[in-house]
Amino acid sequence: MTVRNALDVHPLDVEKVRERIDVALTTFLDDQDARLADLMPGPANSSRRAQAMTSLREFLAGGKRLRPAFCYWGWRGAGGGPDGDEITAAAAALELLHAFALIHDDIMDGSDLRRGAPALHRRHAAVHAEHGWRGTSDAFGVGVAILLGDLCLGWFHELMDGSGLPADRLRAARPLLFDGYVELIAGQYLDLCEQTRARSSVERARTVIRYKTAKYTIERPLHLGGRLAGAGADLMAAYSAYALPLGEAFQLRDDLLGAFGDPAVTGKPVGDDLRSGKATVLMAMTHERAGRGPAAELRRLLDLPDVNDAAVERMQSIILESGAATAVEDLIRRQAEAAARVVDTMAVADEVRTVLGELVVAATDRRY
Amino acid sequence: MTVRNALDVHPLDVEKVRERIDVALTTFLDDQDARLADLMPGPANSSRRAQAMTSLREFLAGGKRLRPAFCYWGWRGAGGGPDGDEITAAAAALELLHAFALIHDDIMDGSDLRRGAPALHRRHAAVHAEHGWRGTSDAFGVGVAILLGDLCLGWFHELMDGSGLPADRLRAARPLLFDGYVELIAGQYLDLCEQTRARSSVERARTVIRYKTAKYTIERPLHLGGRLAGAGADLMAAYSAYALPLGEAFQLRDDLLGAFGDPAVTGKPVGDDLRSGKATVLMAMTHERAGRGPAAELRRLLDLPDVNDAAVERMQSIILESGAATAVEDLIRRQAEAAARVVDTMAVADEVRTVLGELVVAATDRRY
Repeated sequence: MTVRNALDVHPLDVEKVRERIDVALTTFLDDQDARLADLMPGPANSSRRAQAMTSLREFLAGGKRLRPAFCYWGWRGAGGGPDGDEITAAAAALELLHAFALIHDDIMDGSDLRRGAPALHRRHAAVHAEHGWRGTSDAFGVGVAILLGDLCLGWFHELMDGSGLPADRLRAARPLLFDGYVELIAGQYLDLCEQTRARSSVERARTVIRYKTAKYTIERPLHLGGRLAGAGADLMAAYSAYALPLGEAFQLRDDLLGAFGDPAVTGKPVGDDLRSGKATVLMAMTHERAGRGPAAELRRLLDLPDVNDAAVERMQSIILESGAATAVEDLIRRQAEAAARVVDTMAVADEVRTVLGELVVAATDRRY
Repeated sequence: MTVRNALDVHPLDVEKVRERIDVALTTFLDDQDARLADLMPGPANSSRRAQAMTSLREFLAGGKRLRPAFCYWGWRGAGGGPDGDEITAAAAALELLHAFALIHDDIMDGSDLRRGAPALHRRHAAVHAEHGWRGTSDAFGVGVAILLGDLCLGWFHELMDGSGLPADRLRAARPLLFDGYVELIAGQYLDLCEQTRARSSVERARTVIRYKTAKYTIERPLHLGGRLAGAGADLMAAYSAYALPLGEAFQLRDDLLGAFGDPAVTGKPVGDDLRSGKATVLMAMTHERAGRGPAAELRRLLDLPDVNDAAVERMQSIILESGAATAVEDLIRRQAEAAARVVDTMAVADEVRTVLGELVVAATDRRY
């Protein structure tokens, strides 16, 4: 596995937290295995159940635990104790929410790969085809993946609620979960709509990543950890001031990797976003900056039924020549600097400040 | 609209409860409209947002409110007061859970129609096609429907949590929600798996309807209402003894309607379950009872790529000649009687007993 981990920049604390989050997830999934075995007894069901659970465990094993990490450090920044299993379980729940989001996202995008392996709907379609079962393999794969995503979403609520944190703290935090969830769905919907437009806009593409990434991946997890530890309004505002530019920079790095990343480290085909016609900020900037000829050529290439390697290379050239890639790099640098400046004056313990500072680097300077 | 309502058998209380549940839902959806308008401002988004919300409102308007009704009467049976807006809101939340389940179910089943109108994924595919938007209409329709289902699931938790019921009662009830949810997903998964088998079994088909219908539609809503009102173990056990046979009878009636129902009252094509090859108890019983020749013919007809009216008629004959339809009618009668006997001795107020008794009739003696 050549994929580096966004969280292994600070080997002591950060790695320890990651391990504890993995333990919390594994313990929860073991319990769920037993529960599902009770619900679906009998030999006819057991191999089906095992297939579904194994695919979910393998899917979850590949996560970077970025959202749990921000939740945990948001808690620590607000004075939460370092060693409670309760906050670890609550933070781990965000990884289940994320699994839900990715599984459904891959269906919606028609993505074949995720984390270097077949997306869940493809994996279960392949199982169906291998066994020569009755019905359509693709429909079966999509059905199983919809259900596994749904299951993860239910488990997110359940693990959070059963984390062992005090009931009043959980209750105070729940409106954040609801707001964050609706933002996530709104971001997905706007993204889906954006794909249907002949021409995207930088402004609209930035709105999508604000919801889908900046708030969902960084701001809401930090807020959740903060609220669970009883953070005041000033700290919550500082978390937002840090999270929103950093989250945008994180997604813009993803855009660049989606267009130019090395398949050996991204786990996806080169130019994956270009092949799927994803309406990224990078692409919107290219449309704005490229001359009339290259812009028209880009649109034509995006609309090809099968985007081959030559088309990807040509699109990469148009993006580079338009200056959009440089503009995105500039924006990443400015947003990362803005986040770093907030960290400097944030009223948190030095240890937390160090980690949040290093997460700026990890989130924006990555190769995968 | 010729569709009768399962809840209009007891015109005074039952109708009043239904109206209050509709008000709670409408109020909640109005709030969500405003929230989504804040999240997705601008003219480019507003028509998209309106399209999605209108489709959801129309979808929700068609519901029978059966699960909210059982929740409400479960509350009343446990001594909960008749007029609180809090229990009405909590009960109404179940209609959002149900919308989630149906929307995703229709995608998984590839159903074109729901409640006499295009299923949500078909409706949004048609919007895409009409506007000649970029990309694939079917994929867009499925994407929007997945998100609208997801949204309803989030709103279910939010409306329940914000119902205004005391925090300790909600907290006590939450494990029921989690258990019920996992049962629902397990039932859906088993159902999906059952469709892939060359031959279903009566036992497996009955397990599916136990989770998908008996527990989900009747037992869990009754338990939820009961738990919210502080019901003791005896009453909860009586609710189960009533709900499980009644729920099975309810679904078996659905099976018969799915094979023989009048399209004018079901809102679906005649023999809809036969066309889609649904693995119902009725079908499993037919496979068990029919002779070798008719059973083989039935399997051949079910596997046709396009099941036409003549094939539906022939399948109906095979089901009738096998005696399976009569056996299902017998089972419905026995299960309805079992539920009715439980009502007779249930320790609830007379008014509640009357309604629960009438709901047995409404749920099992319906034409749609």
